[in-house]
Amino acid sequence: MRILVLGGDGYLGWPTATYFSARDHDVLICDNLSKRHLETQLGFEPLFPNPSLQARVKTWRALSGKPLNYSVGDLLNHRYIYHQLETFLPDAIIHYAEQPSAPYSMLGREQAVFTQQNNVIGTLNLMFAMQHSCPDAHLIKLGTMGEYGTPNIDIEEGFLEVTHNGRTDVLPYPKQPGSFYHLSKVHDSHNIMFGCRAWGLRATDLNQGVVYGIETTETALDPRLATSFHYDEIFGTVLNRFCVQAVAGIPLTVYGTGGQTRGFLNILDTLRCVELSLLNPATAGEFRVFNQLTESFSVLDLALKVQEAAKAFGLAVELQNISNPRVEKEDHYYNVKHTKLLDLGLTPHYLDDQAIQSFIEKIIRSKDAILTETIQPHVRWHQS
Amino acid sequence: MRILVLGGDGYLGWPTATYFSARDHDVLICDNLSKRHLETQLGFEPLFPNPSLQARVKTWRALSGKPLNYSVGDLLNHRYIYHQLETFLPDAIIHYAEQPSAPYSMLGREQAVFTQQNNVIGTLNLMFAMQHSCPDAHLIKLGTMGEYGTPNIDIEEGFLEVTHNGRTDVLPYPKQPGSFYHLSKVHDSHNIMFGCRAWGLRATDLNQGVVYGIETTETALDPRLATSFHYDEIFGTVLNRFCVQAVAGIPLTVYGTGGQTRGFLNILDTLRCVELSLLNPATAGEFRVFNQLTESFSVLDLALKVQEAAKAFGLAVELQNISNPRVEKEDHYYNVKHTKLLDLGLTPHYLDDQAIQSFIEKIIRSKDAILTETIQPHVRWHQS
Repeated sequence: MRILVLGGDGYLGWPTATYFSARDHDVLICDNLSKRHLETQLGFEPLFPNPSLQARVKTWRALSGKPLNYSVGDLLNHRYIYHQLETFLPDAIIHYAEQPSAPYSMLGREQAVFTQQNNVIGTLNLMFAMQHSCPDAHLIKLGTMGEYGTPNIDIEEGFLEVTHNGRTDVLPYPKQPGSFYHLSKVHDSHNIMFGCRAWGLRATDLNQGVVYGIETTETALDPRLATSFHYDEIFGTVLNRFCVQAVAGIPLTVYGTGGQTRGFLNILDTLRCVELSLLNPATAGEFRVFNQLTESFSVLDLALKVQEAAKAFGLAVELQNISNPRVEKEDHYYNVKHTKLLDLGLTPHYLDDQAIQSFIEKIIRSKDAILTETIQPHVRWHQS
Repeated sequence: MRILVLGGDGYLGWPTATYFSARDHDVLICDNLSKRHLETQLGFEPLFPNPSLQARVKTWRALSGKPLNYSVGDLLNHRYIYHQLETFLPDAIIHYAEQPSAPYSMLGREQAVFTQQNNVIGTLNLMFAMQHSCPDAHLIKLGTMGEYGTPNIDIEEGFLEVTHNGRTDVLPYPKQPGSFYHLSKVHDSHNIMFGCRAWGLRATDLNQGVVYGIETTETALDPRLATSFHYDEIFGTVLNRFCVQAVAGIPLTVYGTGGQTRGFLNILDTLRCVELSLLNPATAGEFRVFNQLTESFSVLDLALKVQEAAKAFGLAVELQNISNPRVEKEDHYYNVKHTKLLDLGLTPHYLDDQAIQSFIEKIIRSKDAILTETIQPHVRWHQS
């Protein structure tokens, strides 16, 4: 299958590209490398050395013998993405090519505008390019569980059957996103849903939970194939950050009471979920939503798990409840339906001591590289 | 009260600005005049001579003796809107400053992207400028009933109480917009709702039906105060277009079966609704939605009404069912709640023969100016 991986230089994009390349798909990566530029601007860097896209592709080709291809370009340049689709004619497009950080989007006006413009307009350009060159390709779009917010009812997979005043309909699930980044994903979802309805595009919207993990079968083949692993306040996700804090001897920064509950999954399951979506495509005109997570935890749950698992390394980990920089509920109902990917064959990697310990073990080896000053949150949602 | 009217050169913006100026409010108009530029590009023009904003302001000042002010600038230039808010310090901001046409947004990629970028990023810039300079100002934002689409249940005013699996919550009403323009309004609504929640902004989102009418008390004072009246395929709304077709002797173009039902209101009621919102502002942190319409009609209903009313002028009006250029249901449930503005004191001007005849009478006087070739729809939603 011809698979286009947009954002294929990123934390998930690179493992995805190599995963499908290893399975003999014809994979093309497109990336504008903008996240590397944002890192540079912020003074952050991934924990493990993260060679350039160009170098990693070369290494992958040499080690695997597979012909992975790449192209550097920007979805905001519509001529670029039209050209890529016209010449590659993908069967499936896996779209990670978005500014991925909620705190980044809350830094200020410039970052909020960049996030929504980059994500929403980039995806619009992609939709028009698909309509033009490959209207039958399957768009697999990475969304986020954060689109839903924390409603007081069960979270269904994209759609909700509502009975109201004696009448019933199945409607798009109401969205209550919690940052300009999460909002950009909601905007994308609405735009793509319309593209499916009006133009007959086929799309799978993966509302993904928070991903944790350091490596995959493919990226573990050689240190030069490592993916971008962040633990900083902007690009670091919570479990990855806690593991780094445990190793660095910094108290785990629990935002507020830590009662915020979210969906999580292992990076290995991300790849499998994308594969299951790919092998079981949406039909023409279908806008399909999968909730892509395997378990739910509160932030405090996670901190306690890391504290417990770290004992095996003799690490005495402290927890610190800090003023919550975000505007979010810390005590709320959270019950997410996520059966569609299980029905397609997903066998989850659950989070246990062993998994956490495998992360901590790898982080210990790079302990000296931890930039401890990048971890404390400085971006506040309410700028008063 | 200091009232900023964004988009104050437009069909609704200009009548709004003069309405509040006449009532002794301190009114500042901001407009980038982009709609005039789009008209020029398309070769369309309003039916009645539409002097420049600058000329109309001068005329209004001379005739009314009121100090209406204006400024030409673009919300996409954040420095411009920051400066306007810092210096004018409005109590209320009435925001019409968006690309207003669904067919325009469906012309192609460039127009879809322009629409979403202009509307969404412009509104983001405005929100940040408000947060910076006048966080307590009341934002009155013009949205559209088209944000809801045509669900099979009653359309409530912005929010829906949902009971699901034994639990209940009040959630944002699910949106199913039908064009890239309507999508831009949905994106705005989500962004503003977040601004209210995270920053404590106060906002009223007016989900407005299709407006009809030619003039208001203020614009009728002098022909040089006329507002922009469109009947073309891009900027013309359905009832206004039908009245012009009746006068021009062109069959009324009913899209498909004409079973599409929508909410409508008289331009006089638009002004009163905005005033009622202004006089009864949202509270700090509140995101409030009013469905701004007075009646619902199907497209066929409207055509038949115009046909009937036109008889008084000896006009034999024909109806023509043409292939629907849009992707929309032509046979659907439609029941919209719209009590909040009535509760605040709205006394609707309902659509009757007399109203339609008053429009036709004015159009007859400008019959020779009708550009008949601009009326037939050429923009198709499904470009296959």
